[in-house]
Amino acid sequence: MTSIPETMRALELRSYDGGAGSLAVVEKPVPRPSKGQVLVRVAAAPVNPSDLMFLRGMYGVRKSLPVVAGFEGSGEVVASGGGLWSRLLVGRRVACAAPNDGDGTWAEFMLTDARLCIPLRRATDTEQASMLIVNPFTAWALLGIARELRAEAVVQTAAASALGRMIVRLAKARGVHTINIVRRREQVELLTREGAGCVLDSSAEDFDASLREHCKRLRATVLFDAVAGETTGRVLRAMPAGATAVVYGALSLEGCLVDPRALIFERKRVRGFWLSDQLRRQGAIKTFRASGEIQKHLSNELKTEVRARLSLGQAVEGIRQYAREMTGGKVVIVPGL
Amino acid sequence: MTSIPETMRALELRSYDGGAGSLAVVEKPVPRPSKGQVLVRVAAAPVNPSDLMFLRGMYGVRKSLPVVAGFEGSGEVVASGGGLWSRLLVGRRVACAAPNDGDGTWAEFMLTDARLCIPLRRATDTEQASMLIVNPFTAWALLGIARELRAEAVVQTAAASALGRMIVRLAKARGVHTINIVRRREQVELLTREGAGCVLDSSAEDFDASLREHCKRLRATVLFDAVAGETTGRVLRAMPAGATAVVYGALSLEGCLVDPRALIFERKRVRGFWLSDQLRRQGAIKTFRASGEIQKHLSNELKTEVRARLSLGQAVEGIRQYAREMTGGKVVIVPGL
Repeated sequence: MTSIPETMRALELRSYDGGAGSLAVVEKPVPRPSKGQVLVRVAAAPVNPSDLMFLRGMYGVRKSLPVVAGFEGSGEVVASGGGLWSRLLVGRRVACAAPNDGDGTWAEFMLTDARLCIPLRRATDTEQASMLIVNPFTAWALLGIARELRAEAVVQTAAASALGRMIVRLAKARGVHTINIVRRREQVELLTREGAGCVLDSSAEDFDASLREHCKRLRATVLFDAVAGETTGRVLRAMPAGATAVVYGALSLEGCLVDPRALIFERKRVRGFWLSDQLRRQGAIKTFRASGEIQKHLSNELKTEVRARLSLGQAVEGIRQYAREMTGGKVVIVPGL
Repeated sequence: MTSIPETMRALELRSYDGGAGSLAVVEKPVPRPSKGQVLVRVAAAPVNPSDLMFLRGMYGVRKSLPVVAGFEGSGEVVASGGGLWSRLLVGRRVACAAPNDGDGTWAEFMLTDARLCIPLRRATDTEQASMLIVNPFTAWALLGIARELRAEAVVQTAAASALGRMIVRLAKARGVHTINIVRRREQVELLTREGAGCVLDSSAEDFDASLREHCKRLRATVLFDAVAGETTGRVLRAMPAGATAVVYGALSLEGCLVDPRALIFERKRVRGFWLSDQLRRQGAIKTFRASGEIQKHLSNELKTEVRARLSLGQAVEGIRQYAREMTGGKVVIVPGL
């Protein structure tokens, strides 16, 4: 094991106002693990849409400031605070999530609960593993919900996102049809190349009629919605009676607007999905088992495209660029660069 | 059995535009029942909010025009078109619902499926029975949903409506707390006299804080919402994590606006309720059994206050007045007047 320095560099969030200076690189002490905790030397940590929501104070968790941001990452466990599971992890490569009440992954080191670490299989790529939890687990869990609701086909908004593309591939591997809604013409081609059979551009004139027709033909009864606002109700309206909207994001930053007649007369329903909640409720054993399955798909259906690798110093500007244009691959922070 | 005339008077809907002349009294032939149908001599038929939605073309069912309106009523079965159940009903007093594809109850006679008739107990009042299906069944079914969702307390909007007051009384009899939201100061007193423990005026300044406090204290996890629009999300926001909004009306005539963060991070859900759907899905035996129970409560918890009895000739103007002011008792059409 390499020695652990006294201090480290980290990307700290100082205010939720989104202004210049709200994110800054700082030098701070490397924390020491308590019982049940481990210290991870971070190899890679992505910037996800949920991180952007967190930076603006709009996420389900608001932490006391200043705090290191970044919800997920991967690296090597370099120290344990004691406890069986923590000690077993020392020296292992892991994917890890940040604790709900402490510093995150955008740093050279992160302290987290041993239970929030997933040991990696030998064949699993470390960089891909840094994006193992937020998107692949969500894709896995959403398709699990579709199965519970007995959907033969699903509709999804923001289909060109990293997550959307995983859902396309994973659904295809499982024989579930997807109807993919994107907001720009060029995203249609992107998704078609990905193997999506049905891609609809919501800016097209015949969008609503076309969506209705595809939903009917494929019997699409579940919607995965990352947009919220008017989109939720607009898509739900085109779906058959009994359809369920599962809202997992709010890219529009607006309230979901749903026609009460769809709820009353067509038995349509609206619910949400939050990965943290899902992981907490399904328990450690199920999560551990799923993580093994998910890693097997990490080089194909659940692979994430990376468009940029940034040092901590480059990250502030890189995050700003990513917020402006989220399609086209993830931005990954590599603290060792 | 009294003789059946050749023609009858009926209140016919001629257009969904709501203009003058869209509703008119007409003379038309008394229909003849086919197999499985019965002819009911209508004794009384109420005007419900769902009728008003139907008159404007906003209900879950749009019938071909012209058509006799009126979803429910009571009377005597005077002829059968054959079939065991139909023949058994002849000569009996019944509560009855209009068929989904034909003329309704606002007439001297109505043809309906025998399965849409509920035989009345000896002690059941005919006028109260004309309002047996829409409101008492809905109150009964909504509290059934609250029980399924294990709610210790429920919140309801439009609580001063006939249905809202039934829910107050029936919930009280079952030991379920209600938090009742009204839109005007004078309705607070009305509901308090009804025995409601907690009544909140949504026009009060401290409404949101007060609602939140009551929901938390009583653990209110189910909302019965008849208003839709911004109200759905506003009330849901004040409720504890995991709460479900059951939308059964849309008095605001607007889309339900719900914060996606409440769906995602607080596991809140939105669904609808439609009595027709519920009755069809629960089947005849369960409906029949419930109807017996409901009749026992028709003189107390499920009693409807009547403010006016109108002849068919008085009905057009009476309906207009009711639409302007729905609180303060039902308007009942009595074709024999």
